[in-house]
Amino acid sequence: MSLRHSVGRLSQRAGASCTAASASHLTKVAALQTRSFATPVPPVTQNAAGSKGPTAMVFLNMGGPSTTDEVGDFLSRLFADGDLIPLGRLQNYLGPFISQRRTPKIQKQYATIGGGSPIRKWSELQNEEMCKILDEISPETAPHKPYVAFRYANPLTEEMYNRLLADGFGNGKGGRAVAFTQYPQYSCSTTGSSLNELWKWRQRLEGKAGPGAIQWSVIDRWPVHPGLVEAFATNIEQKLLEYPEERRSKAVLLFSAHSLPMDVVNRGDPYPAEVAATVYAVMQRLGFSNPYRLCWQSQVGPKAWLGPQTSTSVEDYIAKGQKDLVLIPIAFTSDHIETLYELDREVIGESGHADTVKRVESLNGNPIFIKGLANLAKSHLQSGVACSYQMGLRCPGCKSERCAESKKFFASPENAFAV
Amino acid sequence: MSLRHSVGRLSQRAGASCTAASASHLTKVAALQTRSFATPVPPVTQNAAGSKGPTAMVFLNMGGPSTTDEVGDFLSRLFADGDLIPLGRLQNYLGPFISQRRTPKIQKQYATIGGGSPIRKWSELQNEEMCKILDEISPETAPHKPYVAFRYANPLTEEMYNRLLADGFGNGKGGRAVAFTQYPQYSCSTTGSSLNELWKWRQRLEGKAGPGAIQWSVIDRWPVHPGLVEAFATNIEQKLLEYPEERRSKAVLLFSAHSLPMDVVNRGDPYPAEVAATVYAVMQRLGFSNPYRLCWQSQVGPKAWLGPQTSTSVEDYIAKGQKDLVLIPIAFTSDHIETLYELDREVIGESGHADTVKRVESLNGNPIFIKGLANLAKSHLQSGVACSYQMGLRCPGCKSERCAESKKFFASPENAFAV
Repeated sequence: MSLRHSVGRLSQRAGASCTAASASHLTKVAALQTRSFATPVPPVTQNAAGSKGPTAMVFLNMGGPSTTDEVGDFLSRLFADGDLIPLGRLQNYLGPFISQRRTPKIQKQYATIGGGSPIRKWSELQNEEMCKILDEISPETAPHKPYVAFRYANPLTEEMYNRLLADGFGNGKGGRAVAFTQYPQYSCSTTGSSLNELWKWRQRLEGKAGPGAIQWSVIDRWPVHPGLVEAFATNIEQKLLEYPEERRSKAVLLFSAHSLPMDVVNRGDPYPAEVAATVYAVMQRLGFSNPYRLCWQSQVGPKAWLGPQTSTSVEDYIAKGQKDLVLIPIAFTSDHIETLYELDREVIGESGHADTVKRVESLNGNPIFIKGLANLAKSHLQSGVACSYQMGLRCPGCKSERCAESKKFFASPENAFAV
Repeated sequence: MSLRHSVGRLSQRAGASCTAASASHLTKVAALQTRSFATPVPPVTQNAAGSKGPTAMVFLNMGGPSTTDEVGDFLSRLFADGDLIPLGRLQNYLGPFISQRRTPKIQKQYATIGGGSPIRKWSELQNEEMCKILDEISPETAPHKPYVAFRYANPLTEEMYNRLLADGFGNGKGGRAVAFTQYPQYSCSTTGSSLNELWKWRQRLEGKAGPGAIQWSVIDRWPVHPGLVEAFATNIEQKLLEYPEERRSKAVLLFSAHSLPMDVVNRGDPYPAEVAATVYAVMQRLGFSNPYRLCWQSQVGPKAWLGPQTSTSVEDYIAKGQKDLVLIPIAFTSDHIETLYELDREVIGESGHADTVKRVESLNGNPIFIKGLANLAKSHLQSGVACSYQMGLRCPGCKSERCAESKKFFASPENAFAV
């Protein structure tokens, strides 16, 4: 997603190709299997009654470079992802070119926010803490073991999958793993891309494992989960306390989510509607205490993106005299360059009103949020469903066969339908 | 809104000018008052404890021509509305030109659906039935008297306001009226335009009435009201029963709302997010029984509109083999040409699968819906608020002074904030 804040180097792109090359024979095997995918792999529905731990809890997210040295790798992977940035046949040429051009600027941005993205630190902490709670509230699936799989940064999906196998999951021994997206709202560009990647590595590393393969289920969206809503709401209430009491209820809440290009929106991506559902749920929880708007950030390039833009919305409200503005990153669960640099340094820093334009804390290590994750995971583990019913439905305008096959794999038979 | 299904004639446009001319001196008075609007008119907050009936319940909607003869007038008003179709200085020239060109085609469409729009019939019935229930459940504000004010068709706002005055409201006698939008989700193009029109006529007809003027309060949005959600959900359940049991849960629910031009979306119009909130609430009530998508209908002209389009979504799903599709008009409360012609005749009629692509009933005379309207109105009458807190907030990209003044009038002092 983070196009605006992405960097790439040709050398890193070569690295990505290298990874691809080393797995090329597996790719061919997987491709053959995919083409003869008349009957999908065995159903991945779970039987809570019969299941035992250990259970692998795998957090999916885009990731970010932990150091400025990793920025190049991060970027070349990002621009190589056709689910995120569909460049068609030109992907292998344009991707490295664009990422290389962006390198110096974006490296500086990461240097500014402390030398790297904190997303790995937060993801690992959130998952570890969640697993501790799960061991208590869901003993029948304990022990719960935390894994992180990033789409564009270490630990990558391949690394995570190999760790799972080394830890005794799969390889004829079965075992259960839950792919838990850390994007609360589903987009084909984010969760979809992560699941396609997971499906790819599952096919490559366990395509022939049969009944002894890891049994996967997916938490693919949770836009209005009570723990998420409560965590956002309490953070907002906390931030509002920083305004003088007489101005507090008049501060405008500006919910900000990463934007999508209009061609993705118009293809039928469910993300804008699910983000809106989160916003409405948070406002309901707050009793509509303040006026609000949903806006969209991080647009880049010449294409049309969904608006209104966060940065111009802030400028416009200030121009109208409304200077008490609370920015709420509503589609991220931890700090990213989009919060620490784009919102804090650019939008707020350049607004001329850093005293009245404020950003609420990201969820990061928030215990309400982590407890919410555990409750959500417990419900999923007990539900016996493979994924949400919504996940099996492709976007009306989807042309991706990878998406079709990945969805077919993750959606259980009783959920599957012919789209 | 209904650009696609609009007709106009120069003769009708002349008629509209005539109305405007007859009120020209009032316009000047109102304009003067507006310019010197340093202190807004007295607060319109309601005191439920002290209020007595009668209470005027005024339904706001766009309206539609009841006969094909009214089509021209309807269209010339629609294309003259700068809140809906901002043509700037060219409004008075381009509007009639466009409407005239569309006349013959659209008249045929109204002829096809029975010679006119049923919106007046349904609006009057819904309001009368709601008022009967209100008289029972809210005796302290009884009797409740139903009025309808359409934006582009009879009864127009001016006519409604004059009826209110003739019936003993205002003119020094005070009295309470509730402007109750029949667009569940707020858009500046719909509810905003209706309220600007109401504010205009209020200024013209009662601008100097002082404390004896009608006390207005506004129900300006109700996207997730339980009565609305329940009515949609039961209609969907009813329609799903028409599919064989083994196919029922696999039918895809396609929620369809009137689209907006992207320049309105990017200005910050709250409508797309509120429509998404309705959809999510209905899906929650249905227990996510079926896969679903939100799509947008009635795009017209060369500008970019919010998608995915309803018509292409239906085509795309059919091409993917998904032929069981349930269309749900989610932003209308009664049948319009958008349901009866566009969805039924065009989208379904031309799909080649009229046996499996179906549309749920519109809310029309649905008793669950009407009971919901009464409960919503009762809550509003007892709340003592002038309008939602959200209504006072202009869109970040709004440049309309009319909008600013209208909002200032309808938002009560304690709700007002400096935007």
